[in-house]
Amino acid sequence: MNYHTVFGTVGKVLLVEAGLLVLPLITSLLYQDGCATDFLIAIAAALLLGGLLYCLCRKNTGGSSIRDGFVIVSLAWLALSAVGAIPFVLSGEIPSFVDAFFEIVSGFTTTGASILADVEALSPSILIWRSFSHWVGGMGVLVFLVMLTGKNSDRSIHILRAEMPGPIVDKIVPRAQDTARTLYVIYLGMTLLLVLLLLAGGMSLFESLLHAFGTAGTGGFGMKNDSLAGYSPYLQWVISIFMLLFGINFNLYYLLLLRRIRDFFHSNELHTYVAIIFAAVALITWNISPMYENVAEALRHAVFQTSSIMTTTGFATADFNLWPSLSKAVLLLLMFIGGCAGSTAGGLKVSRIVLLFQLGRQKLRQALHPRSVSVCRLDGRAVDEHTLSGVSAYFTLYMLSFAAIFLVLSAEPFDLETNFSAVTACFNNIGPGLSAVGPTGNYAAYSPQAKLLLSFAMLLGRLEIYPLLLTLAPSTWKRHHGR
Amino acid sequence: MNYHTVFGTVGKVLLVEAGLLVLPLITSLLYQDGCATDFLIAIAAALLLGGLLYCLCRKNTGGSSIRDGFVIVSLAWLALSAVGAIPFVLSGEIPSFVDAFFEIVSGFTTTGASILADVEALSPSILIWRSFSHWVGGMGVLVFLVMLTGKNSDRSIHILRAEMPGPIVDKIVPRAQDTARTLYVIYLGMTLLLVLLLLAGGMSLFESLLHAFGTAGTGGFGMKNDSLAGYSPYLQWVISIFMLLFGINFNLYYLLLLRRIRDFFHSNELHTYVAIIFAAVALITWNISPMYENVAEALRHAVFQTSSIMTTTGFATADFNLWPSLSKAVLLLLMFIGGCAGSTAGGLKVSRIVLLFQLGRQKLRQALHPRSVSVCRLDGRAVDEHTLSGVSAYFTLYMLSFAAIFLVLSAEPFDLETNFSAVTACFNNIGPGLSAVGPTGNYAAYSPQAKLLLSFAMLLGRLEIYPLLLTLAPSTWKRHHGR
Repeated sequence: MNYHTVFGTVGKVLLVEAGLLVLPLITSLLYQDGCATDFLIAIAAALLLGGLLYCLCRKNTGGSSIRDGFVIVSLAWLALSAVGAIPFVLSGEIPSFVDAFFEIVSGFTTTGASILADVEALSPSILIWRSFSHWVGGMGVLVFLVMLTGKNSDRSIHILRAEMPGPIVDKIVPRAQDTARTLYVIYLGMTLLLVLLLLAGGMSLFESLLHAFGTAGTGGFGMKNDSLAGYSPYLQWVISIFMLLFGINFNLYYLLLLRRIRDFFHSNELHTYVAIIFAAVALITWNISPMYENVAEALRHAVFQTSSIMTTTGFATADFNLWPSLSKAVLLLLMFIGGCAGSTAGGLKVSRIVLLFQLGRQKLRQALHPRSVSVCRLDGRAVDEHTLSGVSAYFTLYMLSFAAIFLVLSAEPFDLETNFSAVTACFNNIGPGLSAVGPTGNYAAYSPQAKLLLSFAMLLGRLEIYPLLLTLAPSTWKRHHGR
Repeated sequence: MNYHTVFGTVGKVLLVEAGLLVLPLITSLLYQDGCATDFLIAIAAALLLGGLLYCLCRKNTGGSSIRDGFVIVSLAWLALSAVGAIPFVLSGEIPSFVDAFFEIVSGFTTTGASILADVEALSPSILIWRSFSHWVGGMGVLVFLVMLTGKNSDRSIHILRAEMPGPIVDKIVPRAQDTARTLYVIYLGMTLLLVLLLLAGGMSLFESLLHAFGTAGTGGFGMKNDSLAGYSPYLQWVISIFMLLFGINFNLYYLLLLRRIRDFFHSNELHTYVAIIFAAVALITWNISPMYENVAEALRHAVFQTSSIMTTTGFATADFNLWPSLSKAVLLLLMFIGGCAGSTAGGLKVSRIVLLFQLGRQKLRQALHPRSVSVCRLDGRAVDEHTLSGVSAYFTLYMLSFAAIFLVLSAEPFDLETNFSAVTACFNNIGPGLSAVGPTGNYAAYSPQAKLLLSFAMLLGRLEIYPLLLTLAPSTWKRHHGR
C-alpha cells in the first residue's frame, strides 16, 4: 500500500471538512445559539489533523493501486465522522461520543438513523450540520476529491470506482474529472431548485435548506419529531417527487444534458424503478385507505413513504409502523431493493435486482437446455459474465454480512422485528425501521457497542461492502505488495 | 416432453403409495379406530388412478430428458399428496380438503408444519400416516423409483439429479441403482436402530415407530401437543442425536460402509456442520441458562432445539418462542442453513453455505488482486466454476422466491414475525416458526389460499426450486422440443 497517497488524501478530506464546517459556524453566529466555539474547535481540529497528514505525506512516491482507493474511501469516511462528531459532543447536545459518532456516521452515510428522541431541542447550527452531512455524504465526498486529485487521473478512477455506488459505474469513468464536475453541477442545481420550491411552499430559508440537504442526500434527518407529518400536502408532494428524482441514476441526467433523450428513456433500470414504485404505491394505497379519510390522503402517504423508503431517505409523513402487515412487508422489501445505481440512494440498487432476476431466469433456462447459451441484457446490451458473477457475488457478500450483523445485534434485549429492521434500516442507509426503531422511535436504547456495530453497518452499506472489508484485511496493510 | 414417461412414472408412484397406505390400514384394524374404510378408499383411489396412468402410458416411446425428470418429481409429489390427503378428509379428523392437503404436503416434504391445534385427538392410524409420510418423503419416494425404473439407467440419473438435495449429488450418480439401494438400506437400518433405542427408553412400539419416522425423515410430526417436552431426558437425548445423524450427508455413511474412514472425516461439510452446531449450542445454552434450573437442563434443551432446527426436523422440548432474542435469532439463521446436502434435511444446505463463504472470500481477494486466480476448494478438491455459479444462482433464486412468497403471505392479518417465520419454516421444511406459528402454535388461522401458498413453499423448498418452477414454465410442456 502507498501510505503517502492514502494518508495524504485523508488529510485533504479533513481540510475540505474544515471548509464544510463553516456553514454551521455561520448558522451559529446568525442564530446566536452558543455553538460557535464548538464548531471553531472542530474546524481547528480538522485543519490541524488534516494539515499534519497532508504535509507529512505530501511527497508522493510511486503510483497508487485499487487497494489504496478502497482504504482511502474507508478512512476518509471514518476521519470525517470522527471530526464531525466533535461539535455534537462539545455543545453538550449529544454528550456521549459514541452517540455523536453514530449520529454523524448516520449523516455522512445518508442513513438518517438517530439516537435523539427530541430533535426539536437541538440548536439551529447543530441541526444544519446534521442535515448538511447528508448532502456532503450523498453524492460522495470523494466526488469532490476526484476534482481535487484530478492530476493523477489513474488514482481518480480507482477512487471513483470504489466510491460510486452500483454496478454501472464504468459508463462515466472515461473522463472522470469532467464527469464528476458535471454530476456535481446537476446535484447542486437540483438542490437549488428544491430549495426554491420549498420556499414557495412557505418554508423559511433555514427549513428549506435543511430539508433540501436531507432530500438530495437521500438522508432523512429532519427538524421535527414527527419528521414531515406537520407540513402541508404541497411540501410533502414536492419532497416526495424530489426524493424520487434523487433516487435515479445521475448518469441518466447527464444523458439528458447531452440531449440523448432516447437513451434516457431506454434505461431498463429506470423502467424497473418506476414500475416498482407504481406497484408499491398501488398496493399500499389500497391496503391503507381504510385508515385515512379519503383515498387522496392515503395516496399521498403511500407515495411519500414509498419514495422515502425506496430511495433510502427515511423522511416520514405517517407512522408506517401502525400500517397493516402487507404495507409493512412491502416497505421492508423496498428497503432491500433501494434506489438506482449511481444515485445518492443506498440498498442493493435496482440494477442489481434486475440482473439477479435475469440471472435466475437464465439458470432456469439452462436447467432445461443445458447446452444452450443465453445472455442477460441491460439497456439492450449484453452483460458480460464478469459483471454477472460480480453481481451475484455482491449479493452473497451482502446477505452474509447482513446475517452476521443481525446475529451480533440480537444480543440486544429487543424483539426480533426491532433488531431485524434496525439492521435493515442501517445497512441499507434508510434510517427508520419498524417496531421500536420505527418512524416515531429511535436508536437511543441500544448499547454503545450496538451503536458502533450499527455505525459499521451504515458504512458497510454506503461503501458497498468491499472497501470496508478490505480495509480490515491484514494483507491490505502490507507495503508494496504488488498493485 | 415425453408424456408417456412422465405420466407412466407418476402412475407407478401412485401404485407404490397404495402399498404404503397398507401400514395405516393395518394400524387402524389393530386399534379399531374406525378409519379402516377411509384408508381402503384411499388405497382404491391410488390403485385406480395409478393403474390407469400406468396402463395408458405404458408404451414408452423415445427417450426422456432432464426436463421429464423435473416434471416427474413435481407431479409425483403433488399426486402423492392429493391421494394421501383422502383419509384425513374421509375420517372427518381434518374435514377441509385444503387443510388435509397442507398437512400431507407438510408430511411428504418432511416439513412438519401442522394446522392441528390438538394432535392428541387424532386416531392412531391417522397419526401413523402423518408420520409415515415423513419417512417416505424423507429419503425421497423417488429413491424407490430409481430402483423401479432401474432398467433405463439414463432416466434414473435424471430423476436422481432432480431429487437428491444439495450440490454434491454427482458423487453417487455413477452406479445410481446400486447406490440408491445402499442408501435405502442405511436409512432403514438407522431407523430400526432408533426404534430399538426408543423402545429401550420405555416408549411403546407405536410411539417408537411414529417418532422414528419423524426423526429419520427430519419431519417433526409428533403425537403430543407439547411435541417431545413430556418425554424423559434419555428419549430426548436419543432423538437429538438421531436428528443430527439424519442431517449428515448419506454419502458419508456410504463411505463408512466402504471403510473409507479417512474420507469420512475429511469432509468440509461435516466439519462445518459440527462446528455450527457446537457454536449454536454454546451460545444458546449460555443465553437460556437463567431460564432453567441448572446448566444441564439448559444444555439439553439447547442441543435438542439446535438439532431439531438445524436438521429442519421441528420437534420441540421447549417453547423457544419464549427464549431471548439472541437464541431466537440463532435458530432463525439455522433455519436458513439447514442440514448437509444429500441428507433428509431441508434448508440451503451446509455445503452451499460453505461454498458461498468461499465465493465471497474469493471475490474480496480478486478485488485486491484483479489479475490473480484463486480457487474454491471442498474436501481438498477444486470446485469448478460451473458448480460455483450454480450455487450462487441457486442462492439468488432461493432469496427471490423467499421474498415473493413472503410478500404474498403478508396479505394475511398476522404480524411480520409470524408471516416471516412461517415462510422460513415452510420453505426450509422445518415446521414450527416463531410467534403465532411457534412450537405451541399452528397454521390453522391462515386463510385457505395462504395454506396453499405455504404448501407450494414446502414443495418448492423440498424439491430445491428448479423442478417446481420449471414444471410451471409453459415451454416445458411443449412436445419434442429437443432434449
